[in-house]
Amino acid sequence: MAVLTLGELAVRFGLTLRGDPERAVETVGTLEAASPRAIAFLANPRLAAALHGTRAAAVILREESLAACPVDALIAANPHATFARIAAMLHPVPTAPAGVHASAVVDPTAVIDPSAHVGPQTVIGARARIGARCVVGAGSIVGAETTIGDDTRLVARVTILERVVIGARVLVHPGAVLGAEGFGFARDGEAWLHVPQIGGLRIGDDVEIGANTTIDRGALDDTVIGAGVKIDNLVQIGHNCTIGPHTAIAGCVGIAGSSHIGARCQLGGGVGIAGHLKICDDVALTGFALVVSDIDASGVYSSGIPVEKAADWRKVVGRLKRIDSLSRRVAKLDRQSNDGEQAE
Amino acid sequence: MAVLTLGELAVRFGLTLRGDPERAVETVGTLEAASPRAIAFLANPRLAAALHGTRAAAVILREESLAACPVDALIAANPHATFARIAAMLHPVPTAPAGVHASAVVDPTAVIDPSAHVGPQTVIGARARIGARCVVGAGSIVGAETTIGDDTRLVARVTILERVVIGARVLVHPGAVLGAEGFGFARDGEAWLHVPQIGGLRIGDDVEIGANTTIDRGALDDTVIGAGVKIDNLVQIGHNCTIGPHTAIAGCVGIAGSSHIGARCQLGGGVGIAGHLKICDDVALTGFALVVSDIDASGVYSSGIPVEKAADWRKVVGRLKRIDSLSRRVAKLDRQSNDGEQAE
Amino acid sequence: MAVLTLGELAVRFGLTLRGDPERAVETVGTLEAASPRAIAFLANPRLAAALHGTRAAAVILREESLAACPVDALIAANPHATFARIAAMLHPVPTAPAGVHASAVVDPTAVIDPSAHVGPQTVIGARARIGARCVVGAGSIVGAETTIGDDTRLVARVTILERVVIGARVLVHPGAVLGAEGFGFARDGEAWLHVPQIGGLRIGDDVEIGANTTIDRGALDDTVIGAGVKIDNLVQIGHNCTIGPHTAIAGCVGIAGSSHIGARCQLGGGVGIAGHLKICDDVALTGFALVVSDIDASGVYSSGIPVEKAADWRKVVGRLKRIDSLSRRVAKLDRQSNDGEQAE
Repeated sequence: MAVLTLGELAVRFGLTLRGDPERAVETVGTLEAASPRAIAFLANPRLAAALHGTRAAAVILREESLAACPVDALIAANPHATFARIAAMLHPVPTAPAGVHASAVVDPTAVIDPSAHVGPQTVIGARARIGARCVVGAGSIVGAETTIGDDTRLVARVTILERVVIGARVLVHPGAVLGAEGFGFARDGEAWLHVPQIGGLRIGDDVEIGANTTIDRGALDDTVIGAGVKIDNLVQIGHNCTIGPHTAIAGCVGIAGSSHIGARCQLGGGVGIAGHLKICDDVALTGFALVVSDIDASGVYSSGIPVEKAADWRKVVGRLKRIDSLSRRVAKLDRQSNDGEQAE
Repeated sequence: MAVLTLGELAVRFGLTLRGDPERAVETVGTLEAASPRAIAFLANPRLAAALHGTRAAAVILREESLAACPVDALIAANPHATFARIAAMLHPVPTAPAGVHASAVVDPTAVIDPSAHVGPQTVIGARARIGARCVVGAGSIVGAETTIGDDTRLVARVTILERVVIGARVLVHPGAVLGAEGFGFARDGEAWLHVPQIGGLRIGDDVEIGANTTIDRGALDDTVIGAGVKIDNLVQIGHNCTIGPHTAIAGCVGIAGSSHIGARCQLGGGVGIAGHLKICDDVALTGFALVVSDIDASGVYSSGIPVEKAADWRKVVGRLKRIDSLSRRVAKLDRQSNDGEQAE
Repeated sequence: MAVLTLGELAVRFGLTLRGDPERAVETVGTLEAASPRAIAFLANPRLAAALHGTRAAAVILREESLAACPVDALIAANPHATFARIAAMLHPVPTAPAGVHASAVVDPTAVIDPSAHVGPQTVIGARARIGARCVVGAGSIVGAETTIGDDTRLVARVTILERVVIGARVLVHPGAVLGAEGFGFARDGEAWLHVPQIGGLRIGDDVEIGANTTIDRGALDDTVIGAGVKIDNLVQIGHNCTIGPHTAIAGCVGIAGSSHIGARCQLGGGVGIAGHLKICDDVALTGFALVVSDIDASGVYSSGIPVEKAADWRKVVGRLKRIDSLSRRVAKLDRQSNDGEQAE
């Protein structure tokens, strides 16, 4: 754990300090729970009431929140981003020792940068390349001819199949499976015939991939995950999808094959996207949204329905199932009413 | 496989036996398929017709079902729970030999109870503590400073990150990932900045966690899973969630970060819960329910819609999308009708 | 990579060739991207415009598409299936060397065919049987008394629990968990009591199972996956389910316990099926469909709702929640109108 003074932080991040430059912080916390050795943040000035009673050593906040702050403060244009950077300094990822663990099984043709860490019980395939300062965490598998860029971290038990290309500074959480064969079959009578999936998978720089998430390799062309894409846990991305830069995908999302998601999109939890679609840049999909056709205008889209008491909901569903006849009755009443009006 | 007589079972569980105390049972079965060496159960007296024709050695049932039972019977207040206990006696979990497998990679500072089993291809991190009679199944990874209570069983290939606290008698199925970093980012221009997830994960006693389920550690505070919580396969629980004791969560559920679920709740398959919500005790959510606001009254809630023939459903959806105009037409007809009534 | 001439392909698969029998192909591609050394296909004659401008060495197509093809052509009754077979010839699965890797932990009572490959960091339990030419990929775990048929391939990091029976030519992708204990509990006061899951899991020949998919063993009887079933990534199949032959299940599907799916069904992405149901043969469920009662007529069923702009959707949901009162108002108007008509 690092210890830094408010003065050091102000200089390092170009912040204005109100308070004691010698005050030391050693961790981060929430406004409610932060100890006097912790730094907290307030992003939204409208929530400035939350500052009341905080025991934090200091709070990172926007200038308009300053008056309400009972403790020292660091003024930042983007308090959350500044907080993230300070948290990363105070809680650096523990460095893993350079070198290959004795229990790792590494193909002699693999090329591993001497500064990389290859952990216990790992497997590195033929002609794989592991970049500088990479971490191949315990139990991870890196397939033949797969390339991993500098400073990428496979936390533990990550499986990467063959011929995958991973960028720099990528973070992959445990259980993720990258580059498995996708769901491709040809109908052959009543049976399904496996279609070999010979495309690749390319993952850009600064991508984060959640635990137990799966991203399939392409059938013929490549699956492509753009730079800065963030993917949560238990997400499925089918073969030949492309995801634009800086798109964020929450947990339990499923994207069927050959769909193309634009840049800076935000997919809420449990969203489903059918195959062979195009979704343009800057689309937000709220939780449980189902997309079955192209979206070519940016904006927010939804189709999830929030819960009701079950008894009420059963009535709603019963009525909904008869909405066609309801609509026809209304149309008829409408015509009668119009006839009446015309007759008057 | 153990062999027990009906007399032994009656004594052990305080049951009334109708039948031969010397009759031996060695396994459990369904009423339909049980062999004459197996014991079955009937929980619901209204289904007593199912007793007809059973070949089971004996049936565990409630007193009111006794008359309909053609074979020996053990009378229990809660036949299903009694069945579960007897099944556990007849089919005990195979004991794993105490000790650390030669292929395990154990940090010298880890503290492993001599009665624990640490299986092949496992990794135990620095200062981890493994309790008495624990099983760390093949391929499992236990992170640094993680603590595992007595009699807990990681079946196989479980990944537990650092500083996680696991209670006693916890059962974790293969592929589960406990304590990975959650989905926390600060917006920084068009990019997302990783926010270090420095909170912990605490899992109470008697919890069960399904295969390939993921439970993230907290961002700043801890994620907390209460005692006796049961979680099925492929469930995602986000950072800083708290789950109250004895809540049961079926497969494919997703719970976004910082939501708080009460005690004794039941979440059906595929349920989705948005972030930062409070759900009170004793709430049941039926399959596919979507929760986007707090629930503060116990009861059953739903929002799933059962299937229709696709052609009919397309009509329903088309009408639903125009329900706003339909409602306005009805309102207008209503006004006209009221005008008419008033005019009369 | 193999190299084959069009003449060899025509002979081998009984196809009619229009073009140069000596032309060599060494890979497969899409019509758009195929190089002059690649073979492509066109399944649907109505899409024959896609042939225009292709640089492929040859195209596999139906006779009616021939006129529109600017390059050599192989005429097939089922171009997609023929393409799949040719792709498999041109891109054979790399053969894994027979034998057991030095890092594998194999119980001395396991029976492994000498032609099988058991990769690094694997674990094979007591009395397990591994068939001829099987691949047990890196990091896989095969439980005690589990049997794996000939030519089955566990790609990597597959976990199979004890006493599971796997057929021949099965393909299992990384992270799949086969035969874990299902979600079975008896209520005991406010707690849940684990019910031992002592049934088995049987998987037929030619099944494919996706990455991080979970299939639970039976509680008392077996879970059964029929021959030729294809299952995508992140699918959950509960205890005691049976899936009929040649059914295809897309990603993120959840099937609760004891449900029975017929043969040749197709389940779209994110489909949910409640427990204890029967779905007959030849049922197709579109994406996000929810099934809570039996389906006894083949056909296509749906309940997913495609997205709208969020603002419009909020209005729709608001109206939907009041559809019961809307329906009652329409019924009243209907009666008034009928009264009016009767009065006239």
